[in-house]
Amino acid sequence: MQMKIYGDALSGNCYKVKLTAELLGLSYEWSDIDILQGQTKSESFQQKSFAGKIPLLELADGRVLGESNAIINYLAHGSSLLSEDPFVLAKIQQWQFFEQYSHEPYIAVARFIQLYQGLPKSRLDEYKEKQKQGYQALNVIEKQLAFTDFLVNNSLTTADISLYAYTHVAPEGGILLDNYPKIRAWIERVEALPGYVKIGYL
Amino acid sequence: MQMKIYGDALSGNCYKVKLTAELLGLSYEWSDIDILQGQTKSESFQQKSFAGKIPLLELADGRVLGESNAIINYLAHGSSLLSEDPFVLAKIQQWQFFEQYSHEPYIAVARFIQLYQGLPKSRLDEYKEKQKQGYQALNVIEKQLAFTDFLVNNSLTTADISLYAYTHVAPEGGILLDNYPKIRAWIERVEALPGYVKIGYL
Repeated sequence: MQMKIYGDALSGNCYKVKLTAELLGLSYEWSDIDILQGQTKSESFQQKSFAGKIPLLELADGRVLGESNAIINYLAHGSSLLSEDPFVLAKIQQWQFFEQYSHEPYIAVARFIQLYQGLPKSRLDEYKEKQKQGYQALNVIEKQLAFTDFLVNNSLTTADISLYAYTHVAPEGGILLDNYPKIRAWIERVEALPGYVKIGYL
Repeated sequence: MQMKIYGDALSGNCYKVKLTAELLGLSYEWSDIDILQGQTKSESFQQKSFAGKIPLLELADGRVLGESNAIINYLAHGSSLLSEDPFVLAKIQQWQFFEQYSHEPYIAVARFIQLYQGLPKSRLDEYKEKQKQGYQALNVIEKQLAFTDFLVNNSLTTADISLYAYTHVAPEGGILLDNYPKIRAWIERVEALPGYVKIGYL
């Protein structure tokens, strides 16, 4: 038995795990969970999972791990996507906590409202507020990428995977990248990596 | 010159850093930043900080690190608050990402609305919604603490510090701990640790 990843192929958080596994050339089984169909709500998934959410990593021995950024750091342990240097490791985590607190709740939610819900009038004000705060998150990324090719120093780390996941599909939530040339160049660098797969790929 | 921690003594996120430094017996200078007085908005702080926010760690050599959970993991490097086991490390991070995404945005914000803003009528609906989701986060913690004395296995890790910070002051946001006996016992275990300091301590 090999490790199993439970996820929804269109979710950026789940995509982080798939992209990391592919970039590292890991062997895994993908178990597709359709969140819109309520498949995370089944009793068997609730029992198994952490906090009832996807993505979820299940190891061959049955142990499970939740939270996308924790999962990708675990998969990347000992690889070039992390570092032996404690300060570099901390910087990677700094960007990942920023992603979950100041980036994903705006950029992913604007995308959800537009792409999945078809931009209902009842959520229009919220959508515009999410976009405003999403642009603030992009400003922080753009500023860093004026100094380095990737978010932490000049090589790919899990921090880039965490931030790339929803940033590259930000336009699906009406958050445009036209004024972010450094981000656009960084996206191209990520997409040129050997093993890269697109979001939605199964 | 020693390391410097920029923070607001009443902020749970800043308190995590102080508590970790005290539990580890580290030497540091505390620079008090009053967020309600707009002190994070000063040009000098914006220039120095990551994403303009507190807490911020400044090392003796001038390098800076943002995001509370990244900071405490950096401070705890090599100590018993972390682990050499990659899966244990990943579990610690799982809880910390859960804290920033599914716990702090509800429990800390309910506390902010009640404690700092005096529960204005205009935010009452939002406050109640935050409480509801805050209780969901507490359910996840209570469930784990039925199996282990601390969140990851049976000894204190940075995951406990991350979750303790806002959980123990949840009642300041009207989120009561009466129905959470395991959480209350865990709070007592944390508060009995050598080096423990209360929130608000300067």
